[in-house]
Amino acid sequence: MAATAVASPAIAQSSPELKWRMPTSWPKSLDTIYGAAEIMCKAVSDATDGKFQIQPFAAGEIVPGLAIVDAVQNGTVEIGHTASYYYFGKDPTFGFGTSVPFGPNFRLNQAWWTQAGGDALLNDFYKKYNARGLLAGNTGCQMGGWYRKEIKTVADIKGLKMRIGGFAGRVLERMGGVPQNIPGGEIYQALEKGTIDAAEWIGPYDDLKLGFHKVAPYYYYPGWWEGGLQLDLYVNRKAYDALSAENKAIIEAASAYAHVDMQAKYDARNPAALKQLVAQGAKLRPFPADVMAEAFKQSMGLYQELNTKNQNWNKVYGDYARFRSDQNLWFRFTEATFDRFMQAQKL
Amino acid sequence: MAATAVASPAIAQSSPELKWRMPTSWPKSLDTIYGAAEIMCKAVSDATDGKFQIQPFAAGEIVPGLAIVDAVQNGTVEIGHTASYYYFGKDPTFGFGTSVPFGPNFRLNQAWWTQAGGDALLNDFYKKYNARGLLAGNTGCQMGGWYRKEIKTVADIKGLKMRIGGFAGRVLERMGGVPQNIPGGEIYQALEKGTIDAAEWIGPYDDLKLGFHKVAPYYYYPGWWEGGLQLDLYVNRKAYDALSAENKAIIEAASAYAHVDMQAKYDARNPAALKQLVAQGAKLRPFPADVMAEAFKQSMGLYQELNTKNQNWNKVYGDYARFRSDQNLWFRFTEATFDRFMQAQKL
Repeated sequence: MAATAVASPAIAQSSPELKWRMPTSWPKSLDTIYGAAEIMCKAVSDATDGKFQIQPFAAGEIVPGLAIVDAVQNGTVEIGHTASYYYFGKDPTFGFGTSVPFGPNFRLNQAWWTQAGGDALLNDFYKKYNARGLLAGNTGCQMGGWYRKEIKTVADIKGLKMRIGGFAGRVLERMGGVPQNIPGGEIYQALEKGTIDAAEWIGPYDDLKLGFHKVAPYYYYPGWWEGGLQLDLYVNRKAYDALSAENKAIIEAASAYAHVDMQAKYDARNPAALKQLVAQGAKLRPFPADVMAEAFKQSMGLYQELNTKNQNWNKVYGDYARFRSDQNLWFRFTEATFDRFMQAQKL
Repeated sequence: MAATAVASPAIAQSSPELKWRMPTSWPKSLDTIYGAAEIMCKAVSDATDGKFQIQPFAAGEIVPGLAIVDAVQNGTVEIGHTASYYYFGKDPTFGFGTSVPFGPNFRLNQAWWTQAGGDALLNDFYKKYNARGLLAGNTGCQMGGWYRKEIKTVADIKGLKMRIGGFAGRVLERMGGVPQNIPGGEIYQALEKGTIDAAEWIGPYDDLKLGFHKVAPYYYYPGWWEGGLQLDLYVNRKAYDALSAENKAIIEAASAYAHVDMQAKYDARNPAALKQLVAQGAKLRPFPADVMAEAFKQSMGLYQELNTKNQNWNKVYGDYARFRSDQNLWFRFTEATFDRFMQAQKL
């Protein structure tokens, strides 16, 4: 038998053949998001009897939370778990990997990535950063954040100092608001002191832990800038290309497994958290129609500017926008009608 | 080195260590559903360098399409891909694995299975059939079928002869309709001749291929009996227990991968198919409000009966209904509002 000639893989069962380090953008307290990173790593180890081990790290442990793409690009680490839109300052095209204002929801994001242009177009773009992207989780549609005062009309956005991330901040700015960049751990105090008027974080499950409802009770929806916030794994191209075909298949399937698990966790945990928030005084409000309309108009304006200014953006946006348009046409029929009926029942 | 002592796995790289046969309930023409079976098998083979091979078979090739659970139960095959509700005649509890009328949509089904009682409760039930179930695909919310004449009121359901599957047929019967069991390949002719008045199949992508719109142009939505039709892999318990921990992890992740891929395929393909159907004369109609209300009332009545008559059903239903209720409360806020806004835009 040819056993001895190919025996080397068997040796490694007692110690890993391959050890990767995976920095993330998350504190461990974001247990659903950091949990997706852990679940992905465990799935890879389980599928290989520990021969391929990936160790996750919280933000800042080995790499700053917002420098994951850089660390993957320059080969400091083999893989990282992050939200691509944190890197929109390098190029706004990164936004598509996570979410752009009025982009697709969870289902459409997943379908665009898997079956339309997403994977191919974005991975072509990620090559410039020596990275291979993999679908790895989603939060679902986020909430629109916490406000000290009610937002009754689009005029109330003028001068509003709001903690809001990258891309959405640009839209808020076009609406007359003042976007602020504040780390998660400092938001509560800034809201309490009135240094800022509003802040967006994630959704009920994560927001409850930080207690924003105690200092800014108006809880708006929907989070139009994050209709389905997708997470990304970035693998260094050289490290990826060096993987065996089995290990490539294993990290791809493990990512899908973590992707399903993360969305399911948010869905399972948000309802109870929302009930608690409301019981503790959170006041749920939909954004006024003129706020939504203006935000939409300003977003589309921004995209048109980017289409003319940025070739990378333009290359992805056409496919993305066409897909979103076709999908929203179809989804308004059976999916939306079924959901609306169910949501109207006393169950 | 300990190489020679543990060399046997390495030998097998040239020929599979493990070969399973996987009958399915699908003709190959249902390329999205049968495709999920193929993708799952390929993912397992790819992750093991061909050491673990699962061969999919179309319905009837080695096992009749509706006898998958039986074949898994008695060990004729190690694994099968099917929709659990086909077996509701054995026990209606099987319905939860796929879809029951007014059950959860794709997101809620996935969340219930993965993070609430689904996996644990149903796998406890499947033990009676020597089977371990795995999440393996979804069609999304189906359409409500094709009708020769318009349905203007719930009175039009009286006497309606409709091709409709198992559980939904019981509800239709309670509404005065006459459910018919007709294989997919014979529906067109039955509609054309008027032997039946209506038929439900899946959604635009699959329905277009069978051409029902030419003989029954009224295309209703939503498919209230299939708000998110989930597919199942059943693994024979003995075969499952004999798997190594790695292979258990590999089939679990491969199922999740196929699950994501299948829903994404339906989402990506349905919009173009719907456009074609409408261009070829299909007349899209929402079910009248009184039809929906009566179907809901009769479904809840049926569930209450089953709660008192069937212990297995009762054990699952409580958890399922509570989860559905909590979820529909939460989803009406940010998710539904975001989707409704997007669907109302001219994009």
